[in-house]
Amino acid sequence: MTTGVRRRMGVQERREQLISVALELFSRRPPAEVSIDEIASAAGISRPLVYHYFPGKLSLYEAALRRAAEDLAHRFEEPRQGPLGERLLRVMGRYFDFVDEHGPGFSALMRGGPAVPSQEAASTANALIDSVREAAREQILAHLGVTRPSPRLDMVVRSWVALAESKALLWLDGRRMARAELEVQLVHDFAALFAVSAAYDEELALLLRELLAREPADGPFGDLVGRLVGLAPGRPE
Amino acid sequence: MTTGVRRRMGVQERREQLISVALELFSRRPPAEVSIDEIASAAGISRPLVYHYFPGKLSLYEAALRRAAEDLAHRFEEPRQGPLGERLLRVMGRYFDFVDEHGPGFSALMRGGPAVPSQEAASTANALIDSVREAAREQILAHLGVTRPSPRLDMVVRSWVALAESKALLWLDGRRMARAELEVQLVHDFAALFAVSAAYDEELALLLRELLAREPADGPFGDLVGRLVGLAPGRPE
Repeated sequence: MTTGVRRRMGVQERREQLISVALELFSRRPPAEVSIDEIASAAGISRPLVYHYFPGKLSLYEAALRRAAEDLAHRFEEPRQGPLGERLLRVMGRYFDFVDEHGPGFSALMRGGPAVPSQEAASTANALIDSVREAAREQILAHLGVTRPSPRLDMVVRSWVALAESKALLWLDGRRMARAELEVQLVHDFAALFAVSAAYDEELALLLRELLAREPADGPFGDLVGRLVGLAPGRPE
Repeated sequence: MTTGVRRRMGVQERREQLISVALELFSRRPPAEVSIDEIASAAGISRPLVYHYFPGKLSLYEAALRRAAEDLAHRFEEPRQGPLGERLLRVMGRYFDFVDEHGPGFSALMRGGPAVPSQEAASTANALIDSVREAAREQILAHLGVTRPSPRLDMVVRSWVALAESKALLWLDGRRMARAELEVQLVHDFAALFAVSAAYDEELALLLRELLAREPADGPFGDLVGRLVGLAPGRPE
Protein backbone atom coordinates (compact mmCIF):
# COMPACT_ATOMS: atom_id res chain seq x y z
CA MET A 1 0.00 0.00 0.00
CA THR A 2 2.98 2.32 0.45
CA THR A 3 3.89 4.58 -2.43
CA GLY A 4 7.37 5.71 -3.32
CA VAL A 5 6.70 9.03 -1.62
CA ARG A 6 5.29 7.64 1.56
CA ARG A 7 7.99 6.68 4.00
CA ARG A 8 7.39 3.52 5.97
CA MET A 9 6.77 4.43 9.61
CA GLY A 10 7.41 2.34 12.71
CA VAL A 11 4.42 1.27 14.79
CA GLN A 12 4.95 3.89 17.47
CA GLU A 13 5.62 6.61 14.93
CA ARG A 14 2.45 5.73 12.97
CA ARG A 15 0.38 5.73 16.13
CA GLU A 16 1.73 9.16 17.05
CA GLN A 17 0.96 10.44 13.57
CA LEU A 18 -2.60 9.12 13.71
CA ILE A 19 -3.11 10.70 17.11
CA SER A 20 -1.88 14.04 15.76
CA VAL A 21 -4.10 13.85 12.70
CA ALA A 22 -7.12 12.79 14.77
CA LEU A 23 -6.52 15.48 17.38
CA GLU A 24 -6.34 18.06 14.64
CA LEU A 25 -9.69 16.89 13.20
CA PHE A 26 -11.34 16.47 16.62
CA SER A 27 -10.19 20.00 17.49
CA ARG A 28 -11.81 21.62 14.49
CA ARG A 29 -15.18 19.85 14.55
CA PRO A 30 -17.24 18.10 17.21
CA PRO A 31 -15.59 14.67 17.56
CA ALA A 32 -18.86 12.83 16.89
CA GLU A 33 -18.84 14.31 13.37
CA VAL A 34 -15.35 13.08 12.50
CA SER A 35 -15.23 9.70 10.71
CA ILE A 36 -12.48 7.10 10.57
CA ASP A 37 -12.47 7.54 6.79
CA GLU A 38 -11.55 11.18 7.20
CA ILE A 39 -8.81 10.35 9.66
CA ALA A 40 -7.44 7.71 7.29
CA SER A 41 -7.55 10.11 4.39
CA ALA A 42 -5.89 12.94 6.35
CA ALA A 43 -3.16 10.54 7.47
CA GLY A 44 -2.73 9.31 3.89
CA ILE A 45 -3.38 5.66 4.78
CA SER A 46 -6.23 3.20 4.23
CA ARG A 47 -9.13 2.77 6.61
CA PRO A 48 -8.16 -0.86 7.47
CA LEU A 49 -4.67 0.35 8.35
CA VAL A 50 -6.13 2.83 10.86
CA TYR A 51 -7.91 -0.11 12.49
CA HIS A 52 -4.60 -1.96 12.58
CA TYR A 53 -3.27 0.69 14.97
CA PHE A 54 -6.46 1.58 16.81
CA PRO A 55 -9.33 -0.89 17.22
CA GLY A 56 -11.88 1.89 16.63
CA LYS A 57 -12.64 5.55 16.65
CA LEU A 58 -13.18 5.44 20.38
CA SER A 59 -9.66 4.32 21.20
CA LEU A 60 -8.24 6.90 18.81
CA TYR A 61 -10.42 9.57 20.37
CA GLU A 62 -9.24 8.58 23.83
CA ALA A 63 -5.60 8.64 22.74
CA ALA A 64 -6.11 12.11 21.23
CA LEU A 65 -7.81 13.28 24.44
CA ARG A 66 -4.95 11.91 26.49
CA ARG A 67 -2.41 13.80 24.41
CA ALA A 68 -4.47 17.02 24.57
CA ALA A 69 -4.81 16.70 28.35
CA GLU A 70 -1.05 16.25 28.77
CA ASP A 71 -0.43 19.24 26.55
CA LEU A 72 -2.90 21.41 28.47
CA ALA A 73 -1.55 20.35 31.86
CA HIS A 74 1.97 21.32 30.73
CA ARG A 75 0.79 24.82 29.90
CA PHE A 76 0.32 25.51 33.59
CA GLU A 77 4.00 24.87 34.20
CA GLU A 78 5.86 28.11 34.68
CA PRO A 79 9.23 28.91 36.28
CA ARG A 80 8.83 30.09 39.86
CA GLN A 81 10.53 33.43 39.41
CA GLY A 82 9.34 36.98 38.99
CA PRO A 83 6.03 38.49 40.11
CA LEU A 84 3.05 36.14 40.34
CA GLY A 85 0.87 38.33 38.11
CA GLU A 86 3.28 37.98 35.20
CA ARG A 87 3.59 34.24 35.72
CA LEU A 88 -0.19 33.83 35.68
CA LEU A 89 -0.45 36.01 32.60
CA ARG A 90 1.99 33.79 30.73
CA VAL A 91 0.04 30.72 31.85
CA MET A 92 -3.21 32.28 30.64
CA GLY A 93 -1.57 33.10 27.30
CA ARG A 94 -0.63 29.46 26.79
CA TYR A 95 -4.02 28.31 28.06
CA PHE A 96 -5.86 30.44 25.52
CA ASP A 97 -3.45 29.33 22.80
CA PHE A 98 -4.69 25.82 23.51
CA VAL A 99 -8.33 26.88 23.62
CA ASP A 100 -7.86 28.77 20.36
CA GLU A 101 -6.16 25.82 18.62
CA HIS A 102 -8.65 23.23 19.82
CA GLY A 103 -11.83 25.36 19.92
CA PRO A 104 -14.65 23.05 18.81
CA GLY A 105 -13.01 19.98 20.37
CA PHE A 106 -12.44 21.84 23.63
CA SER A 107 -16.07 22.97 23.74
CA ALA A 108 -17.40 19.51 22.91
CA LEU A 109 -15.17 17.94 25.53
CA MET A 110 -15.96 20.35 28.34
CA ARG A 111 -19.66 20.42 27.63
CA GLY A 112 -19.84 16.64 27.47
CA GLY A 113 -23.05 15.25 26.09
CA PRO A 114 -23.65 13.86 22.64
CA ALA A 115 -20.57 15.42 21.07
CA VAL A 116 -18.44 12.95 22.98
CA PRO A 117 -18.73 9.70 20.99
CA SER A 118 -19.77 7.35 23.83
CA GLN A 119 -20.45 6.92 27.52
CA GLU A 120 -17.15 5.14 27.88
CA ALA A 121 -15.32 8.02 26.21
CA ALA A 122 -17.19 10.45 28.46
CA SER A 123 -15.85 8.57 31.46
CA THR A 124 -12.27 8.74 30.17
CA ALA A 125 -12.80 12.38 29.26
CA ASN A 126 -14.02 13.25 32.75
CA ALA A 127 -11.01 11.58 34.33
CA LEU A 128 -8.66 13.46 32.00
CA ILE A 129 -10.38 16.79 32.62
CA ASP A 130 -10.01 16.16 36.34
CA SER A 131 -6.32 15.38 35.89
CA VAL A 132 -5.78 18.68 34.06
CA ARG A 133 -7.64 20.59 36.79
CA GLU A 134 -5.58 18.85 39.43
CA ALA A 135 -2.33 19.66 37.59
CA ALA A 136 -3.40 23.30 37.30
CA ARG A 137 -4.30 23.42 40.99
CA GLU A 138 -0.94 21.97 42.01
CA GLN A 139 0.96 24.41 39.84
CA ILE A 140 -0.87 27.43 41.25
CA LEU A 141 -0.39 26.24 44.82
CA ALA A 142 3.32 25.74 44.12
CA HIS A 143 3.53 29.33 42.87
CA LEU A 144 1.85 30.45 46.09
CA GLY A 145 4.43 28.43 48.02
CA VAL A 146 1.67 26.41 49.71
CA THR A 147 1.66 22.63 49.97
CA ARG A 148 -1.30 22.04 52.27
CA PRO A 149 -3.94 24.65 51.45
CA SER A 150 -6.76 25.45 53.86
CA PRO A 151 -10.25 24.68 52.53
CA ARG A 152 -10.71 28.38 51.77
CA LEU A 153 -7.48 28.69 49.79
CA ASP A 154 -8.22 25.45 48.00
CA MET A 155 -11.61 26.84 47.01
CA VAL A 156 -9.96 30.02 45.68
CA VAL A 157 -7.51 28.08 43.52
CA ARG A 158 -9.95 25.44 42.26
CA SER A 159 -12.72 27.90 41.56
CA TRP A 160 -10.32 30.14 39.64
CA VAL A 161 -9.24 27.18 37.48
CA ALA A 162 -12.95 26.53 36.88
CA LEU A 163 -13.51 30.20 36.08
CA ALA A 164 -10.74 30.13 33.47
CA GLU A 165 -12.49 27.14 31.86
CA SER A 166 -15.87 28.87 31.96
CA LYS A 167 -14.56 32.11 30.48
CA ALA A 168 -12.72 30.18 27.77
CA LEU A 169 -15.92 28.32 26.84
CA LEU A 170 -17.97 31.50 26.88
CA TRP A 171 -15.35 33.22 24.77
CA LEU A 172 -15.35 30.41 22.18
CA ASP A 173 -19.09 30.94 21.80
CA GLY A 174 -18.89 33.95 19.48
CA ARG A 175 -15.48 35.38 20.44
CA ARG A 176 -17.07 38.69 21.26
CA MET A 177 -14.16 39.93 23.37
CA ALA A 178 -10.47 40.31 22.64
CA ARG A 179 -8.60 37.24 23.77
CA ALA A 180 -5.78 39.29 25.31
CA GLU A 181 -8.26 41.22 27.44
CA LEU A 182 -9.69 37.99 28.85
CA GLU A 183 -6.21 36.73 29.68
CA VAL A 184 -5.44 39.85 31.73
CA GLN A 185 -8.94 39.78 33.20
CA LEU A 186 -8.42 36.24 34.48
CA VAL A 187 -5.20 37.26 36.19
CA HIS A 188 -7.14 40.05 37.87
CA ASP A 189 -9.95 37.64 38.66
CA PHE A 190 -7.46 35.50 40.53
CA ALA A 191 -6.53 38.44 42.73
CA ALA A 192 -10.20 39.38 43.09
CA LEU A 193 -11.41 35.91 44.14
CA PHE A 194 -8.43 35.68 46.47
CA ALA A 195 -9.21 39.09 47.95
CA VAL A 196 -12.87 38.22 48.54
CA SER A 197 -11.82 35.16 50.57
CA ALA A 198 -8.99 37.06 52.24
CA ALA A 199 -11.38 39.78 53.39
CA TYR A 200 -12.68 37.27 55.93
CA ASP A 201 -9.59 35.17 56.60
CA GLU A 202 -6.47 36.49 58.33
CA GLU A 203 -4.16 33.78 56.98
CA LEU A 204 -5.24 34.41 53.39
CA ALA A 205 -5.02 38.17 53.91
CA LEU A 206 -1.41 37.79 55.03
CA LEU A 207 -0.53 35.62 52.05
CA LEU A 208 -2.24 38.02 49.64
CA ARG A 209 -0.48 41.05 51.12
CA GLU A 210 2.86 39.28 50.69
CA LEU A 211 2.05 38.45 47.07
CA LEU A 212 0.83 41.93 46.22
CA ALA A 213 3.85 43.55 47.91
CA ARG A 214 6.08 41.77 45.40
CA GLU A 215 4.09 43.00 42.39
CA PRO A 216 5.53 45.82 40.27
CA ALA A 217 3.28 48.82 39.65
CA ASP A 218 3.38 48.14 35.90
CA GLY A 219 2.66 44.39 36.16
CA PRO A 220 -0.73 42.82 35.48
CA PHE A 221 -1.77 43.07 39.16
CA GLY A 222 -0.28 46.55 39.26
CA ASP A 223 -2.90 49.23 39.30
CA LEU A 224 -5.90 46.93 39.76
CA VAL A 225 -6.26 47.69 43.45
CA GLY A 226 -6.08 51.40 42.74
CA ARG A 227 -8.72 51.06 40.06
CA LEU A 228 -10.95 49.05 42.37
CA VAL A 229 -10.61 51.67 45.06
CA GLY A 230 -11.61 54.25 42.47
CA LEU A 231 -14.89 52.36 42.13
CA ALA A 232 -15.70 52.71 45.83
CA PRO A 233 -19.16 54.15 46.27
CA GLY A 234 -19.54 57.89 46.46
CA ARG A 235 -22.13 59.04 48.97
CA PRO A 236 -25.63 58.76 47.54
CA GLU A 237 -27.36 62.11 47.19
CA MET B 1 -54.03 -3.80 42.07
CA THR B 2 -55.26 -1.02 44.32
CA THR B 3 -55.65 -1.81 48.00
CA GLY B 4 -58.12 -0.23 50.33
CA VAL B 5 -55.42 2.08 51.67
CA ARG B 6 -53.99 3.16 48.35
CA ARG B 7 -56.04 5.88 46.77
CA ARG B 8 -56.51 5.62 43.02
CA MET B 9 -54.62 8.43 41.32
CA GLY B 10 -55.39 10.08 38.01
CA VAL B 11 -52.85 9.69 35.20
CA GLN B 12 -51.40 13.15 35.61
CA GLU B 13 -51.28 12.84 39.39
CA ARG B 14 -49.55 9.46 39.18
CA ARG B 15 -47.02 10.81 36.70
CA GLU B 16 -46.27 13.74 39.00
CA GLN B 17 -45.89 11.40 41.97
CA LEU B 18 -43.47 9.17 40.02
CA ILE B 19 -41.44 12.19 38.94
CA SER B 20 -41.20 13.34 42.57
CA VAL B 21 -40.18 9.92 43.80
CA ALA B 22 -37.64 9.51 40.99
CA LEU B 23 -36.21 12.99 41.50
CA GLU B 24 -35.79 12.25 45.18
CA LEU B 25 -33.88 9.03 44.39
CA PHE B 26 -31.85 10.56 41.55
CA SER B 27 -30.94 13.41 43.91
CA ARG B 28 -29.51 11.16 46.58
CA ARG B 29 -27.51 8.77 44.42
CA PRO B 30 -25.95 8.93 40.95
CA PRO B 31 -28.92 8.37 38.60
CA ALA B 32 -27.20 5.45 36.84
CA GLU B 33 -27.38 3.54 40.16
CA VAL B 34 -31.13 3.98 40.63
CA SER B 35 -33.29 1.14 39.26
CA ILE B 36 -36.89 1.14 38.10
CA ASP B 37 -37.59 -1.45 40.80
CA GLU B 38 -36.51 1.00 43.47
CA ILE B 39 -38.61 3.75 41.98
CA ALA B 40 -41.63 1.42 41.83
CA SER B 41 -41.08 0.34 45.39
CA ALA B 42 -40.65 3.91 46.66
CA ALA B 43 -43.84 4.92 44.85
CA GLY B 44 -45.69 1.90 46.27
CA ILE B 45 -46.65 0.56 42.86
CA SER B 46 -45.57 -2.37 40.69
CA ARG B 47 -42.75 -2.20 38.18
CA PRO B 48 -45.10 -2.81 35.20
CA LEU B 49 -47.25 0.08 36.38
CA VAL B 50 -44.23 2.41 36.29
CA TYR B 51 -43.73 1.38 32.66
CA HIS B 52 -47.37 2.17 32.04
CA TYR B 53 -46.66 5.83 32.85
CA PHE B 54 -43.09 6.07 31.57
CA PRO B 55 -41.74 3.86 28.79
CA GLY B 56 -38.40 3.50 30.62
CA LYS B 57 -36.00 4.87 33.13
CA LEU B 58 -34.69 7.31 30.57
CA SER B 59 -38.00 9.09 30.07
CA LEU B 60 -38.54 9.21 33.82
CA TYR B 61 -35.03 10.57 34.31
CA GLU B 62 -35.66 13.24 31.69
CA ALA B 63 -38.97 14.21 33.30
CA ALA B 64 -37.24 14.46 36.69
CA LEU B 65 -34.45 16.56 35.15
CA ARG B 66 -37.03 18.84 33.55
CA ARG B 67 -38.78 19.39 36.86
CA ALA B 68 -35.45 20.02 38.65
CA ALA B 69 -34.39 22.51 35.97
CA GLU B 70 -37.67 24.43 36.28
CA ASP B 71 -37.31 24.46 40.04
CA LEU B 72 -33.70 25.70 39.86
CA ALA B 73 -34.53 28.39 37.30
CA HIS B 74 -37.32 29.68 39.58
CA ARG B 75 -34.85 30.14 42.41
CA PHE B 76 -33.20 32.96 40.50
CA GLU B 77 -36.47 34.89 40.54
CA GLU B 78 -36.40 37.62 43.12
CA PRO B 79 -38.45 40.80 43.54
CA ARG B 80 -36.68 43.83 42.11
CA GLN B 81 -36.63 45.88 45.25
CA GLY B 82 -34.03 46.66 47.87
CA PRO B 83 -30.24 46.58 47.50
CA LEU B 84 -28.78 44.24 44.88
CA GLY B 85 -26.43 42.58 47.37
CA GLU B 86 -29.35 41.41 49.50
CA ARG B 87 -31.27 40.18 46.47
CA LEU B 88 -28.29 38.15 45.27
CA LEU B 89 -27.77 36.76 48.75
CA ARG B 90 -31.36 35.50 48.86
CA VAL B 91 -30.90 33.97 45.41
CA MET B 92 -27.72 32.22 46.54
CA GLY B 93 -29.52 30.93 49.63
CA ARG B 94 -32.19 29.30 47.46
CA TYR B 95 -29.57 28.08 44.98
CA PHE B 96 -27.60 26.31 47.71
CA ASP B 97 -30.85 24.92 49.17
CA PHE B 98 -31.32 23.23 45.80
CA VAL B 99 -27.70 22.05 45.65
CA ASP B 100 -27.99 20.74 49.19
CA GLU B 101 -31.26 18.88 48.49
CA HIS B 102 -30.10 17.38 45.21
CA GLY B 103 -26.38 16.92 45.97
CA PRO B 104 -25.38 13.66 44.25
CA GLY B 105 -27.84 14.16 41.39
CA PHE B 106 -26.64 17.73 40.86
CA SER B 107 -23.00 16.59 40.77
CA ALA B 108 -23.75 13.73 38.40
CA LEU B 109 -25.73 16.00 36.14
CA MET B 110 -23.23 18.85 35.99
CA ARG B 111 -20.25 16.59 35.60
CA GLY B 112 -21.96 14.62 32.83
CA GLY B 113 -20.24 11.41 31.90
CA PRO B 114 -21.23 7.91 32.87
CA ALA B 115 -23.47 8.94 35.76
CA VAL B 116 -25.99 10.23 33.24
CA PRO B 117 -27.80 7.10 31.99
CA SER B 118 -27.37 7.63 28.23
CA GLN B 119 -26.11 9.83 25.45
CA GLU B 120 -29.66 10.86 24.71
CA ALA B 121 -30.23 11.83 28.34
CA ALA B 122 -26.94 13.74 28.28
CA SER B 123 -28.23 15.73 25.34
CA THR B 124 -31.49 16.57 27.13
CA ALA B 125 -29.52 17.33 30.28
CA ASN B 126 -27.22 19.75 28.45
CA ALA B 127 -30.17 21.59 26.94
CA LEU B 128 -31.82 21.86 30.37
CA ILE B 129 -28.61 23.05 32.02
CA ASP B 130 -28.32 25.70 29.33
CA SER B 131 -31.92 26.77 29.93
CA VAL B 132 -31.24 27.21 33.66
CA ARG B 133 -28.09 29.24 32.93
CA GLU B 134 -30.02 31.38 30.50
CA ALA B 135 -32.82 31.94 33.03
CA ALA B 136 -30.24 32.91 35.66
CA ARG B 137 -28.53 35.28 33.23
CA GLU B 138 -31.81 36.97 32.33
CA GLN B 139 -32.76 37.41 35.96
CA ILE B 140 -29.43 38.98 36.88
CA LEU B 141 -29.54 41.31 33.89
CA ALA B 142 -33.07 42.34 34.86
CA HIS B 143 -31.82 43.17 38.36
CA LEU B 144 -29.09 45.27 36.79
CA GLY B 145 -31.76 47.01 34.70
CA VAL B 146 -30.00 46.01 31.49
CA THR B 147 -31.73 44.44 28.50
CA ARG B 148 -28.96 44.47 25.91
CA PRO B 149 -25.69 43.81 27.72
CA SER B 150 -22.34 44.63 26.14
CA PRO B 151 -20.10 41.60 25.53
CA ARG B 152 -18.12 42.53 28.66
CA LEU B 153 -21.17 42.75 30.91
CA ASP B 154 -22.55 39.56 29.43
CA MET B 155 -19.25 37.84 30.26
CA VAL B 156 -19.44 39.12 33.84
CA VAL B 157 -22.96 37.79 34.34
CA ARG B 158 -22.48 34.46 32.57
CA SER B 159 -19.14 33.76 34.16
CA TRP B 160 -20.56 34.53 37.60
CA VAL B 161 -23.41 32.06 37.01
CA ALA B 162 -20.74 29.52 36.00
CA LEU B 163 -18.71 30.37 39.10
CA ALA B 164 -21.71 29.73 41.34
CA GLU B 165 -22.06 26.30 39.69
CA SER B 166 -18.36 25.57 40.11
CA LYS B 167 -18.27 26.61 43.75
CA ALA B 168 -21.41 24.57 44.45
CA LEU B 169 -19.83 21.48 42.87
CA LEU B 170 -16.55 22.01 44.71
CA TRP B 171 -18.46 22.49 47.95
CA LEU B 172 -20.43 19.26 47.46
CA ASP B 173 -17.13 17.42 47.19
CA GLY B 174 -16.40 17.19 50.90
CA ARG B 175 -18.38 20.20 52.20
CA ARG B 176 -15.23 21.60 53.76
CA MET B 177 -16.57 25.13 54.07
CA ALA B 178 -19.68 26.54 55.72
CA ARG B 179 -22.47 26.86 53.17
CA ALA B 180 -23.49 30.29 54.44
CA GLU B 181 -19.96 31.58 53.94
CA LEU B 182 -19.95 30.46 50.32
CA GLU B 183 -23.29 32.16 49.72
CA VAL B 184 -21.94 35.51 50.93
CA GLN B 185 -18.67 34.87 49.12
CA LEU B 186 -20.50 34.43 45.82
CA VAL B 187 -22.31 37.72 46.29
CA HIS B 188 -18.92 39.34 46.86
CA ASP B 189 -17.52 37.46 43.88
CA PHE B 190 -20.20 39.06 41.73
CA ALA B 191 -19.02 42.51 42.78
CA ALA B 192 -15.39 41.44 42.36
CA LEU B 193 -15.79 40.03 38.84
CA PHE B 194 -17.84 43.08 37.93
CA ALA B 195 -15.18 45.40 39.37
CA VAL B 196 -12.38 43.68 37.46
CA SER B 197 -14.21 44.26 34.17
CA ALA B 198 -15.28 47.74 35.22
CA ALA B 199 -11.69 48.70 35.96
CA TYR B 200 -11.17 48.81 32.19
CA ASP B 201 -14.62 49.82 30.94
CA GLU B 202 -16.20 53.21 31.61
CA GLU B 203 -19.77 52.07 31.02
CA LEU B 204 -19.44 49.17 33.45
CA ALA B 205 -17.69 51.41 35.98
CA LEU B 206 -20.62 53.80 35.87
CA LEU B 207 -23.14 50.98 36.33
CA LEU B 208 -21.15 49.47 39.20
CA ARG B 209 -20.80 52.84 40.97
CA GLU B 210 -24.56 53.32 40.73
CA LEU B 211 -25.18 49.86 42.16
CA LEU B 212 -22.69 50.26 44.98
CA ALA B 213 -24.05 53.70 45.88
CA ARG B 214 -27.41 52.08 46.65
CA GLU B 215 -25.88 49.47 48.96
CA PRO B 216 -26.26 49.91 52.71
CA ALA B 217 -23.06 49.76 54.77
CA ASP B 218 -24.37 46.70 56.64
CA GLY B 219 -25.51 44.80 53.52
CA PRO B 220 -23.59 41.93 51.97
CA PHE B 221 -21.68 44.27 49.62
CA GLY B 222 -21.25 46.68 52.51
CA ASP B 223 -17.75 46.70 53.85
CA LEU B 224 -16.20 44.56 51.11
CA VAL B 225 -14.63 47.50 49.31
CA GLY B 226 -13.19 48.78 52.58
CA ARG B 227 -11.77 45.36 53.35
CA LEU B 228 -10.29 45.09 49.87
CA VAL B 229 -8.66 48.48 50.26
CA GLY B 230 -7.18 47.22 53.52
CA LEU B 231 -5.42 44.54 51.49
CA ALA B 232 -3.70 47.07 49.25
CA PRO B 233 0.05 46.40 49.21
CA GLY B 234 2.24 48.18 51.72
CA ARG B 235 5.55 49.34 50.26
CA PRO B 236 8.02 46.45 50.13
CA GLU B 237 11.03 46.89 52.42
